[in-house]
Amino acid sequence: MRMSQYFLPTLKENPAEAQIVSHRLMLRAGLIRQTSAGIYAWLPLGLRVLRNIERIVREEQDRSGAQEVLMPTIQSADLWRESGRYDAYGPEMLRIKDRHDREMLFGPTNEEMITVLFRDGVKSYRDLPKNLYHIQWKFRDEVRPRFGVMRGREFLMKDNYSFDIDKAGAIHSYNKMFVAYLRTFARMGLKAIPMRADTGPIGGDLSHEFIILAETGESAVFCHKGLVDKDILGRTIDYGADLQPIVTEWTSLYAATDEMHDTEAFEKIPESERLAARGIEVGHIFYFGTKYSKPMNAVVAGPNGEQVTVEMGSYGIGVSRLVGAIIEASHDDGGIVWPESVAPFKVAIVNLKPDDGAVAGACGKLYEGLQGSGVSVLHDERDLRPGAKFADMDLIGIPWQVIVGPKGLGAGKVEVKNRRTGAREELALDDVVGELSRRLG
Amino acid sequence: MRMSQYFLPTLKENPAEAQIVSHRLMLRAGLIRQTSAGIYAWLPLGLRVLRNIERIVREEQDRSGAQEVLMPTIQSADLWRESGRYDAYGPEMLRIKDRHDREMLFGPTNEEMITVLFRDGVKSYRDLPKNLYHIQWKFRDEVRPRFGVMRGREFLMKDNYSFDIDKAGAIHSYNKMFVAYLRTFARMGLKAIPMRADTGPIGGDLSHEFIILAETGESAVFCHKGLVDKDILGRTIDYGADLQPIVTEWTSLYAATDEMHDTEAFEKIPESERLAARGIEVGHIFYFGTKYSKPMNAVVAGPNGEQVTVEMGSYGIGVSRLVGAIIEASHDDGGIVWPESVAPFKVAIVNLKPDDGAVAGACGKLYEGLQGSGVSVLHDERDLRPGAKFADMDLIGIPWQVIVGPKGLGAGKVEVKNRRTGAREELALDDVVGELSRRLG
Repeated sequence: MRMSQYFLPTLKENPAEAQIVSHRLMLRAGLIRQTSAGIYAWLPLGLRVLRNIERIVREEQDRSGAQEVLMPTIQSADLWRESGRYDAYGPEMLRIKDRHDREMLFGPTNEEMITVLFRDGVKSYRDLPKNLYHIQWKFRDEVRPRFGVMRGREFLMKDNYSFDIDKAGAIHSYNKMFVAYLRTFARMGLKAIPMRADTGPIGGDLSHEFIILAETGESAVFCHKGLVDKDILGRTIDYGADLQPIVTEWTSLYAATDEMHDTEAFEKIPESERLAARGIEVGHIFYFGTKYSKPMNAVVAGPNGEQVTVEMGSYGIGVSRLVGAIIEASHDDGGIVWPESVAPFKVAIVNLKPDDGAVAGACGKLYEGLQGSGVSVLHDERDLRPGAKFADMDLIGIPWQVIVGPKGLGAGKVEVKNRRTGAREELALDDVVGELSRRLG
Repeated sequence: MRMSQYFLPTLKENPAEAQIVSHRLMLRAGLIRQTSAGIYAWLPLGLRVLRNIERIVREEQDRSGAQEVLMPTIQSADLWRESGRYDAYGPEMLRIKDRHDREMLFGPTNEEMITVLFRDGVKSYRDLPKNLYHIQWKFRDEVRPRFGVMRGREFLMKDNYSFDIDKAGAIHSYNKMFVAYLRTFARMGLKAIPMRADTGPIGGDLSHEFIILAETGESAVFCHKGLVDKDILGRTIDYGADLQPIVTEWTSLYAATDEMHDTEAFEKIPESERLAARGIEVGHIFYFGTKYSKPMNAVVAGPNGEQVTVEMGSYGIGVSRLVGAIIEASHDDGGIVWPESVAPFKVAIVNLKPDDGAVAGACGKLYEGLQGSGVSVLHDERDLRPGAKFADMDLIGIPWQVIVGPKGLGAGKVEVKNRRTGAREELALDDVVGELSRRLG
């Protein structure tokens, strides 16, 4: 993408309304704009990040055997009366009357709807297990929306729902999501730590929040330091096999949010291994048995023809929230530092002298070469002074900057800067495409 | 995907509520389920089609130089008061009050919102032209929703908006979309004919509807037969060049919907070249000048520092409606006949004897081989009699069926059936992967 043509309205000043760093940087880097309180439009650069996060979530859901569906945003109130949640749900639910005065709502979650779809479509234990996910916009009418996409009203969420014939199956489904979530967040460059959690309005017996550590996190968290160093991506996962050993490995070390914190247990950890920090919730998983399937009569025929009420779980990842959460966990004074896997572009070419034919030619060749190797590139060929370009480039956080000026080019060289480390190196012009393609793997 | 594990609840009987063939087939083939009047959930098979259509729309928008954004579903009423449309819009607009009693609405279109995003982000003629698109769920509170996704209430639409410094630029932007739409629909296997149209509530000076022909179409259309045979995909398009010759070529032949029909002009066409048929609207493009930019003050600085009100157009494609429209245009007595480009899977493997180890082994090998070649495959290894499998396979309309049974396999052969033509051929087991990969290009 040529930056002179790109719809990328960056801001020089910090917007007054933004209290936290991710909100400030998302506005300044032209990722989002607020359109109403707690409701945002995604501009091209921000949408690319959102889509990258969505893609990783989808790939890991598919890998675990979950199947994608897409449920609508608008639901009928009657559906929620079946489970008894319509009256129980607070003013966070956006209630709507249609032109025929029928009561509707903008879905904040989908347990009821998926249970009906399952109930109508699956009749036998032979069709189990099933795990259905969707990635859809939801609405939660926060009384005081704030912190940008971290606590917005309209937000993108991946939620899924597992259906099993018995508790053992349901726990296996739960464990699959536990492991899939570890992989999902690790692929985004995040250290996400599962913590035992309250089940809240979803209900149920077993629940973990996935929390990433960030100095600016919304809540205090306490855990064993060993959890931070664990690596899931180096392991071969077989989702058909028993995953309990992995889950046990992660849950046997102490980890708790403020609400669930047990000071006594925490203090049994050697002091040097204790970590008291701040965290941001990016995922939440629940096993809740027959809480919805029983009142809503989601039953299948068992092996002997008996009617069995299915065992369920539900699992959520805040997809739009993750854009903010990743920035909270990965930024510096200059701006955003995107992990490569979610970066809107992997490489930026900074043309220091756009009116110099040789420089423009070299930049054009690099652009074509990188794109041809499947590397996404943003090409800054704007007619601006170098300082402004460097500041914009650090602000928007592209992982690799290739800086091309007449002086270096005279010697056949360009400068390559790594956004995260700040390290700069000179590379021969002809080596850049091959070298960066290799590093970006 | 293994069919025994797939969430694909097909129906044997025609659902009573479905009046048109696409609605019947979408329910029977397990593509969608209604969750409230005119509101649908997309099951895995239907979602794959929807995503394929979305992908083609996106690729053609990107190719034309449009940039993707994503605006929220919920908008503030105040935004619509800026253009004067809030009170003018009828009861099709879903009006909502939030917990603070602020007036909101579920967006039926986005002219106002995009104009504000543009106005806040673009200040100079140097940043023009811009063309911004998004693919987002919209709501239109139809008084009598019917015909499945063809006239639903919640629907997925691609809409975009062009901004130019003057009328000549705006017409070029319009022409780009005209050509991009021809390409988009042609890639979906559709014959879409642009027809001069009323501008309706969007307003403006120039407008074309894109209509596909289908016996079951919603409205009568009249055109010159020559339009049906025109081919856009064989041409090289340069979106930077003047596109008026192409647009003129398509618009110089007579074509009109019922509303705009001019009997006298139509009868000037030689009788053998006249086509009176029925059609389905799948796209609509508008040039409307300063209708929104003027009241909403979307101005940029011109070359001499003067303030110029930008010229705008808007362009829509009914993404979810297209799933139904394609079925209306492409089905037979057995079920859906998907064009390859939008098919949920390109190939189906039908295992006639799942309990036969040799057959299962051959099917498994074919499945791996096709997937390895990048071909999407649905593998029917269900424990059902062959007749039921054939009926299901015709119903869901996968373009190529590979039928594997013990008899043929004994001679190293399988049967390959083309869903559209019904043609069957015997292929050597070892040739299937190479041959189908080649045909699917």
